[in-house]
Amino acid sequence: MSDQTLFTLIREGDTITILDQTRLPFETVTRTLDCIEDVETAIKTMQVRGAPLIGITAAYGVAMALGEAACDSLVVDAVDTMLATRPTAVNLKHAMRRMHQRLLRSRLDQRQNAAWQEADAMFYEDVNANRAIGQHGVTLLKEIYERTGKPVRVMTHCNAGWLATVAWGTALAPVYLALEQNIPVEVWVSETRPRNQGLLTAWELSRAGIPHTLIADNAAGALIANGQVDCVLVGADRIAANGDTANKVGTYLKALAAHAAGVPFWVAAPINTFDTSCDTGKDIPIEERDGDEVRTVQGENGSAHIADTDMRVFNPAFDVTPASLITGFINERGIVLADKLEEHMEHAEVV
Amino acid sequence: MSDQTLFTLIREGDTITILDQTRLPFETVTRTLDCIEDVETAIKTMQVRGAPLIGITAAYGVAMALGEAACDSLVVDAVDTMLATRPTAVNLKHAMRRMHQRLLRSRLDQRQNAAWQEADAMFYEDVNANRAIGQHGVTLLKEIYERTGKPVRVMTHCNAGWLATVAWGTALAPVYLALEQNIPVEVWVSETRPRNQGLLTAWELSRAGIPHTLIADNAAGALIANGQVDCVLVGADRIAANGDTANKVGTYLKALAAHAAGVPFWVAAPINTFDTSCDTGKDIPIEERDGDEVRTVQGENGSAHIADTDMRVFNPAFDVTPASLITGFINERGIVLADKLEEHMEHAEVV
Repeated sequence: MSDQTLFTLIREGDTITILDQTRLPFETVTRTLDCIEDVETAIKTMQVRGAPLIGITAAYGVAMALGEAACDSLVVDAVDTMLATRPTAVNLKHAMRRMHQRLLRSRLDQRQNAAWQEADAMFYEDVNANRAIGQHGVTLLKEIYERTGKPVRVMTHCNAGWLATVAWGTALAPVYLALEQNIPVEVWVSETRPRNQGLLTAWELSRAGIPHTLIADNAAGALIANGQVDCVLVGADRIAANGDTANKVGTYLKALAAHAAGVPFWVAAPINTFDTSCDTGKDIPIEERDGDEVRTVQGENGSAHIADTDMRVFNPAFDVTPASLITGFINERGIVLADKLEEHMEHAEVV
Repeated sequence: MSDQTLFTLIREGDTITILDQTRLPFETVTRTLDCIEDVETAIKTMQVRGAPLIGITAAYGVAMALGEAACDSLVVDAVDTMLATRPTAVNLKHAMRRMHQRLLRSRLDQRQNAAWQEADAMFYEDVNANRAIGQHGVTLLKEIYERTGKPVRVMTHCNAGWLATVAWGTALAPVYLALEQNIPVEVWVSETRPRNQGLLTAWELSRAGIPHTLIADNAAGALIANGQVDCVLVGADRIAANGDTANKVGTYLKALAAHAAGVPFWVAAPINTFDTSCDTGKDIPIEERDGDEVRTVQGENGSAHIADTDMRVFNPAFDVTPASLITGFINERGIVLADKLEEHMEHAEVV
């Protein structure tokens, strides 16, 4: 049985229980969060991470902040607290706008219930959206398998698996669906320095019994250039109206290599990862994180200090891949080629 | 006073003393090697590393293997032992061919002396070649400084500083010369997983008082795309006749990003890094190293285990950057634009 039946977050009454992803893959530690401050810490410290999961967890954070009667300013404060946790993933922004709109439409004494309901709705929508992304995306893997007759060699970056969502994942959803459909897939897993989220991907794939190989981020170019990759599948934190895509730092380098080698480069993300208020990638705010993430490496047996605290570090958490390097987008409605995106956006109701 | 006066290797009688680069930048440990087996271990375990330094250290290894009278087979065995230590850097191959030719021309009872002399000659030639590379390369930095009036922002990869050679370094030689000439330079230092040689570069630059900033390898693309890099300067382990260049894995990704952004990408390496027996990069053997280099990270306080020993790893130590992405080559004779390389090679006596 594969992992797609597992959930990263469980609501129980007015608390949620999460997997602490800063302890994975070494230890499976759960944490129960029962106030907005807990949720704030969990998102900022990346106990909870992944663009879709951040948005939903924050929605529960808002619910936790509301008393039996919640005035407008309490709602706005809760939403603002959650919005300030991380800047790049737009799913958070969309989730907070949705909570805000729903709550302002509700009677004061109904808002607490409404908040939990709306967060629950997002939870289930995420599961369904990701399953649908998997179903659309697996057709791409199937086509490669039918053409080559060999296991499909997928390269991914960071973790866009079920750990980054409520369940299924985005970029890995097609891989889990391939497992269900007996399409053999092998995954190249990039370490993803500085936070090593590739190890989360390896942990997921290992539990699901999907063959995978770990590489240093630096090795991705050689693999792609040498014909050892059939397609690249990544998630996204925010997609501008023109298709420029912010995702974990290092994604752009893989896209350059894929483009140079004629290897398809697909972005798998739910519709609410689009942000039409950003015309291009230049409008997407890029989070810069603490230099200690680069100066140290977390391991099973503790952390290794690779550089002194006085060494200057620049640590952007994301980069922007221009639409011109992207083959297309896989979302819950289907697959859109990057060069048809504008047309598609005109006809789609994008949040 | 900057570091260019420092040497990585000192010969004393029939021994050499090296800096153990597996302990740097955390500890300055020297080791005295007095037999070819010591040299073999030092190169294989990367106590000694860097294409130019490997060749010269191996030459001393051959000298150590010869008794007072050295028959042909002893010479051949010593040369073969050294050749087998690492496959990609061609400097080793050239150094061994040179030792072999010199020794076979010498009388049996002169061979031991001849070996030490030839190794010493290579030692001094390396210092001079790198100083000349610096003098040619600094003109490129000076031109940028005069045009912009701002500190020149150089990106490098791995360590191609004095630690990779006898002295001065290759890619960093122009940076040290810039320091002498009061041309302000700031260096972006990539961590260079899996062996973190970027930390050696940071250590060198720190000792010399040259401003530098550490980044995860993944961040290089964003920096280059965002206009924060004036030029990329890297070393090389082997350059094919057409200019395709093998260098530390990850170099290719930086070259792709530089090319996409119109940022000059220079390869600094002595002439003996060319291998005209390789028509293109496809002919260059790429060393694959132990997966534990990726599964663990060496730090000041020990190593962090990031993945289990049973996790499958692919760990190529080098990649090939096609000549089409390279602006030009800086060697001891001058600067050759990549598109003039063929013409240049016809007129140059390349080893």
